[in-house]
Amino acid sequence: MRPPHWIAAWVLLLHGCAADQPPQAPSTRTDIRDCSTDPPYLPPTVTNTTARLAALRDTMRAHGIHAYIVPSTDAHMSEYISRRDARLAWMTGFTGSAGTGVVTLDRAALWTDSRYWTQAERQLDCNWELQRTTWIESIGLWILEAVPVGGNISLDPFLFSIDTWNSYRQALHGSGRNLVPIETNLVDEVWGDQRPPLPSSKIYSLLEEFTGSSWQEKVAGIRQQMEQHVRRPTAVLLSGLEETAWLFNLRGDDIPYNPVFYSYTLLTNTNISLFVDKERLSAEALGSLQAGCPGPLCVELQEYGQARTHLRNYAQGNVTIWLGTEYTTYGLYGVIPEEKLLEDSYSPVMTAKAVKNAKEQELLRAAHVRDAVAVIQYLLWLEKMVPQGQVDEFSGAQHVDALRRAQKYNHGPSFESISASGLNAALAHYSPSNGSSRKLSADEMYLSDTGGQYLDGTTDITRTVHWGVPTALQKEAYTRVLMGNIDLSRLVFPPNTAGRTVEAFARRALWEVGLNYGHGTGHGIGNFLSVHEWPVGFQSNNVPLTPGMFTSIEPGYYRDGEFGIRIEDVALVVEAQTKHPSGEKPFLTFEVVSLVPYDRNLIDLSLLSPEQIRYLNTYYETIRARVGPELQRQGLEEEYGWLQRSTEPFPLGSAATAATATVGTLAIASLLSALLTGLQA
Amino acid sequence: MRPPHWIAAWVLLLHGCAADQPPQAPSTRTDIRDCSTDPPYLPPTVTNTTARLAALRDTMRAHGIHAYIVPSTDAHMSEYISRRDARLAWMTGFTGSAGTGVVTLDRAALWTDSRYWTQAERQLDCNWELQRTTWIESIGLWILEAVPVGGNISLDPFLFSIDTWNSYRQALHGSGRNLVPIETNLVDEVWGDQRPPLPSSKIYSLLEEFTGSSWQEKVAGIRQQMEQHVRRPTAVLLSGLEETAWLFNLRGDDIPYNPVFYSYTLLTNTNISLFVDKERLSAEALGSLQAGCPGPLCVELQEYGQARTHLRNYAQGNVTIWLGTEYTTYGLYGVIPEEKLLEDSYSPVMTAKAVKNAKEQELLRAAHVRDAVAVIQYLLWLEKMVPQGQVDEFSGAQHVDALRRAQKYNHGPSFESISASGLNAALAHYSPSNGSSRKLSADEMYLSDTGGQYLDGTTDITRTVHWGVPTALQKEAYTRVLMGNIDLSRLVFPPNTAGRTVEAFARRALWEVGLNYGHGTGHGIGNFLSVHEWPVGFQSNNVPLTPGMFTSIEPGYYRDGEFGIRIEDVALVVEAQTKHPSGEKPFLTFEVVSLVPYDRNLIDLSLLSPEQIRYLNTYYETIRARVGPELQRQGLEEEYGWLQRSTEPFPLGSAATAATATVGTLAIASLLSALLTGLQA
Repeated sequence: MRPPHWIAAWVLLLHGCAADQPPQAPSTRTDIRDCSTDPPYLPPTVTNTTARLAALRDTMRAHGIHAYIVPSTDAHMSEYISRRDARLAWMTGFTGSAGTGVVTLDRAALWTDSRYWTQAERQLDCNWELQRTTWIESIGLWILEAVPVGGNISLDPFLFSIDTWNSYRQALHGSGRNLVPIETNLVDEVWGDQRPPLPSSKIYSLLEEFTGSSWQEKVAGIRQQMEQHVRRPTAVLLSGLEETAWLFNLRGDDIPYNPVFYSYTLLTNTNISLFVDKERLSAEALGSLQAGCPGPLCVELQEYGQARTHLRNYAQGNVTIWLGTEYTTYGLYGVIPEEKLLEDSYSPVMTAKAVKNAKEQELLRAAHVRDAVAVIQYLLWLEKMVPQGQVDEFSGAQHVDALRRAQKYNHGPSFESISASGLNAALAHYSPSNGSSRKLSADEMYLSDTGGQYLDGTTDITRTVHWGVPTALQKEAYTRVLMGNIDLSRLVFPPNTAGRTVEAFARRALWEVGLNYGHGTGHGIGNFLSVHEWPVGFQSNNVPLTPGMFTSIEPGYYRDGEFGIRIEDVALVVEAQTKHPSGEKPFLTFEVVSLVPYDRNLIDLSLLSPEQIRYLNTYYETIRARVGPELQRQGLEEEYGWLQRSTEPFPLGSAATAATATVGTLAIASLLSALLTGLQA
Repeated sequence: MRPPHWIAAWVLLLHGCAADQPPQAPSTRTDIRDCSTDPPYLPPTVTNTTARLAALRDTMRAHGIHAYIVPSTDAHMSEYISRRDARLAWMTGFTGSAGTGVVTLDRAALWTDSRYWTQAERQLDCNWELQRTTWIESIGLWILEAVPVGGNISLDPFLFSIDTWNSYRQALHGSGRNLVPIETNLVDEVWGDQRPPLPSSKIYSLLEEFTGSSWQEKVAGIRQQMEQHVRRPTAVLLSGLEETAWLFNLRGDDIPYNPVFYSYTLLTNTNISLFVDKERLSAEALGSLQAGCPGPLCVELQEYGQARTHLRNYAQGNVTIWLGTEYTTYGLYGVIPEEKLLEDSYSPVMTAKAVKNAKEQELLRAAHVRDAVAVIQYLLWLEKMVPQGQVDEFSGAQHVDALRRAQKYNHGPSFESISASGLNAALAHYSPSNGSSRKLSADEMYLSDTGGQYLDGTTDITRTVHWGVPTALQKEAYTRVLMGNIDLSRLVFPPNTAGRTVEAFARRALWEVGLNYGHGTGHGIGNFLSVHEWPVGFQSNNVPLTPGMFTSIEPGYYRDGEFGIRIEDVALVVEAQTKHPSGEKPFLTFEVVSLVPYDRNLIDLSLLSPEQIRYLNTYYETIRARVGPELQRQGLEEEYGWLQRSTEPFPLGSAATAATATVGTLAIASLLSALLTGLQA
């Protein structure tokens, strides 16, 4: 799945550092909406927000607020949020996953990135200006224009990370406007009893066979890091939902696609406080958490809503609290005196979670074998059904979801399946709906970006296919995307290399001919956790690649109004064998764990180097060895045959680059000519 | 020349961002010095610092100071400094270009990076601990250990950039020690009248033929940027010596190798204040600066020492002052109220200077043609003299310096020539001295990294050669370094690409076999200005590559105790022609402007791809076309012959990669076999 933008964190981290990519230039496109006519022209998909805005403004006036900022995230900086936290969507009508709304007493505007511009135009009514950028500086400038000096700009401090809060402070700095956190969420006040209720489903323990180590071992490891840290922190604060879920080997279903539950943890050197609705814990979960009570491995259960109060009390003592600034909210951060803070971008739990141990690696590998079976079933099914005109984007997505669900240990998709035909694939993050879904055709390319949650691992894979005759450009672009995928996957690099320093290897083959793609190249992934797992990946705010980390590798190419290509695999960082010994620590490379062949119909072999072909053939041998037996075990003989055909080795003879081919041809020609001359003589 | 470390700035910028490279691991090597014996064993090259330290400590006591930090730079964060500013060297005996000393009442320590560890051991007496790292955090930890709670840590605020100051503040934050700036420099107090005097040489105007535009045009351009900036700054403060030199088309010789002079500039929307010793301005310079007086293009001359007072007064008004935090000192920064600051990493003058206009590009290209003549003369001379045993590192460096000096417009070397034979080339930044200089030999590799200052441009080039039979490893390593140089030089990349995202292309060929190098890959370069010109290059704190920027490209490989390789060219960022149109802004690539062939004796053609060979041949055609006529014009016929031999096109047939060669051979073999079978039938 395409990497998220994590825009707030990203922007802030770039303060002082040169940006990987420039801010998006303001678009000159025209809006689908026409708010200049009376009545305005609006698509039928917009939400009428007039009454909501009026109610919000009443509340703002009551609080003496002149502008209110509404973000798209929840109190844990979750990428996916529950419906209960979809405040921005309710307020604006816009349901994209990333955006920021600002409401003043007479204006309202929404900021979102290019993935969502069209969607926003279809969903916003004329109360809302659409701002086609996400830089906080630009939000700040708009606010300065809309709110007079002396005005109060307000936000819910529990919905903004420390970093984002600081960006707003910086943007309004010295402007004479005040940035005022208000703990009561004004949108919730207006939303009232229409707001979806709190979740009530069970929170459960993972079976031991699906965990890399016991939660007690994980706690001991984190406490050891605390002891060894030069600042000697006395506690670690966990705000990310996947931090608590991972640490205690617990799962829940509060958030779509992510098996986590609302919680905070304060892990001190002597105590463990878990802030959660304890009624929801299963008997096994409760037993596991309290088996060591009383003692340093006893988990004390506290109300979720008490996290801030408890933290404030704890911070009164002679303590040092370690936290991750990327995802801890200002609401919690603000109660800790500055001198008692130990700030890192990510908590030690987040960084420990990112490096999978041998058992976790095996679990993730195993999940990918079963996942490959489902995807192979899907590709074969498409091959047969599409020419009959029987499949549309939506039914395709439903079918692959069902195929995954039939695999052992599956717990549903790991994100909303992306199933995009023809020009729809050029839209980033397109997902079909039942009502408007394009029919798949042998005359168009089709992009399928899907993943599964399995008890042993989370998967994410993209394949792009064409069942008919692709155009020259489609074939060239696909091949170059594949070359990028291969070049990064087979790269050998030194220890401590940051992803962003090698990311361009996935782009070079496209760049060479003037092509590129506008998204990141990969993201971490969890063991039955988030499909986008921080802090692994290829962006500026990702940590150095370390053996045991899993990341997606997913270059693409998108042609507006025509087609879209993405080739995505998940890969494990492993030690490399190099010709020369590399000093104390070995060099690294990737082991691709996604095991589905690419579309032979779209590969122009003449563009590939011999090394790339050889890599492909080795990868295909691995697919055969690992997925073949599982297909047979499941009795999927037709799929087994398809796999054998699809992983036939590519001939190395056709492998030469265009340049080499010319050279080769010349060499052969002159040799033949010499030979013939010799024969004639 | 190898990129500088700019360590202070670098470390700070990495706060919050993942590091390109990890901090240097503490070394386990033993010190050359042995301070455990009585008397201690010390090399004869150390300086006895006992009396100086005692005097400094007396001064510290008088000021109530418990630790004093002595940096290696001057008030302009210059990379090269005048002898007058060599406070760290005078205090410690250590003459390396980068380091930090800290003196407490009973201890003293010096921090420096791995380039200088051996040198420091040879120069420090036993009063000094050597700390083999440069992270400010580690300096902070040492201070916390050495200075009790309540102690005062002091420094000269004019010798620390804002960013470095903040790093120290951060390192000591919450520790109970006070960080106290003292405007009187305590080392200067102790140094007294032994300190070298102020420079008195003339400051002169460049002739119009050597400037890209008049200083009035440059001022108008900066003022336009001020007007267009959303914060509407009223002034730009210039602290970098090359900023003022560039802006006014003036040069001086206050700093070795860099034609600049002590100065500050405050450029406001209505006035221009140049802080300089006005007695030193040549008549032409004075006339040029004051031709527009009175008026907005009149330069008001003020005493150098008045910069701070003037700035403080200016900052009382309703103003906004724009400055570059990378190189403005805390001493100046501190007098500007926070709300009147507009902070960027680099001032608009620094970023304007980095993008050369068409005339400046032509000037730099022309300087490189004459520079190539000198280097070609040197390489031919070496080829003849080395086998006779007539050359050592020092005499070689003197000879190439003399050859450059004979070229038109030359104003001496642009840095101290690096001339390193055999194992000496494995030492970073090795420069020979008259007393200890290794003899060049046909049995060893030789590395020459030199550059010139010319009125039309600054040059910097490294060539590594071997006149005998290189080992297999030397040949492989050289070829892979060359492959890295080629791969980065021929890269096509999108607009707005930051150097650090493409830097790894210069390393991939080495990485592939477990090799690497420990320094940066390139740096900007000026028109008769600094050989290391900010903010262009491939590090984290460099700005995106833009057409008109010049950068060095200089991968290397170093084998301790054996040999060192570096291949460095200067390249201009230019627009690329791509197969597919690339949208609004064209893609970019490099045009190499250094014009000296590589050592054929060290190239293993079988490792190169056909694309790399073709690139080399095209580059060699360019060298012939541009340098050949100049050699002939100068009557250097023997050199002309050498150039023709050295730039013979490489055969493309031998160009294939090992893999392709096999394929090609197989293809030819089977074709021949088929043919012969046919003939026989």
